[in-house]
Amino acid sequence: MQQRGRFITLEGGEGAGKSTQARRLAAHLAARGLPVLLTREPGGAPGAEAMRRLLLGGQGLDPVAEALLVFAARRDHLVTTIRPALAAGIWVISDRFADSTRAYQGFGQGVAQAAIEQLAAVALEGFAPDLTLVLDLPVETGMARARGRGVAADRYERLDTAFHQRIRDGFLGIAAAEPGRCALVDATPGADAVAARIATLVDDRLP
Amino acid sequence: MQQRGRFITLEGGEGAGKSTQARRLAAHLAARGLPVLLTREPGGAPGAEAMRRLLLGGQGLDPVAEALLVFAARRDHLVTTIRPALAAGIWVISDRFADSTRAYQGFGQGVAQAAIEQLAAVALEGFAPDLTLVLDLPVETGMARARGRGVAADRYERLDTAFHQRIRDGFLGIAAAEPGRCALVDATPGADAVAARIATLVDDRLP
Repeated sequence: MQQRGRFITLEGGEGAGKSTQARRLAAHLAARGLPVLLTREPGGAPGAEAMRRLLLGGQGLDPVAEALLVFAARRDHLVTTIRPALAAGIWVISDRFADSTRAYQGFGQGVAQAAIEQLAAVALEGFAPDLTLVLDLPVETGMARARGRGVAADRYERLDTAFHQRIRDGFLGIAAAEPGRCALVDATPGADAVAARIATLVDDRLP
Repeated sequence: MQQRGRFITLEGGEGAGKSTQARRLAAHLAARGLPVLLTREPGGAPGAEAMRRLLLGGQGLDPVAEALLVFAARRDHLVTTIRPALAAGIWVISDRFADSTRAYQGFGQGVAQAAIEQLAAVALEGFAPDLTLVLDLPVETGMARARGRGVAADRYERLDTAFHQRIRDGFLGIAAAEPGRCALVDATPGADAVAARIATLVDDRLP
């Protein structure tokens, strides 16, 4: 019988380098000879991508509606993309997953964590990543990096430092509360150093 | 202080005449001198209408993703349209609301009622209609009426009789379980007779 793939998520605030590190990790796993699928949220499946466009389209949804919509997209991502890939023995790396909703809609925008856990229970039915890499760096550093990309600030990047501090504290709290699933990664060094650290972590935890 | 408006929903299976009766009821309340807003689900607010297009667009979502998306739309409808109208003293009539999710995604498509109630708790925070009119008629009668409209069958109308029987039984169960909120209306007679019955019911329950 084919061995199930593993599900690894990258989480963290703006400018932490999640997308870069997700690509680097995919290359590292491929070099280990593993079949890898790199995906991202919100999105990662046709219905979920349509919901992503709706989320980013500025419909002015309140945070609870946003949380419901994000979990609708996540459910589609899980059912259509993630679960079939894992069942086929593919390792799946996702740039953001449920912890981003806990951090952004929860700690950032004030949706009760109990409500978010209810949505997670309905949408995921107990499914969780095998490993979550929480990329951490000071808010000012992350904001400066995000600004340095030279693209227009997104809806979160425009929010104030206090918002981003709540996000960072939220992610730190999640990592501390679930050490078996999460690994905290210092994202302050350069991309090569962080990639090397992540490769070691993943090889160690998921040999 | 201005008196809060009342919230009335119409529910029922295909061909029960909800849209017609919603318009008739709006006219009746207006004739009583009340300010009335007629709305419908899924939709009823800009974000919710975008989600409606996504729901009807055939993205092939599984029933749990559909339930999450429908409640995201409902939350937007509630926050953007229904609550402000009620606060302004307007009576709001909605063609479908949360009972449709209980019936269609729940009884029809097998999503656990406990999961639907969790979504309702997050999205509605205890908000419920002042009166729900459950329009009931035999499945075969309803399907024949829906076919007689001369428009293409929608995604539900194409499903089999057993599905529609589960929907009908679901609505009957909801009406029986919450007699304080719900009134069962026999939708077999002609539109004029049903409209007269509904007008009497509403005048009696919400004088």
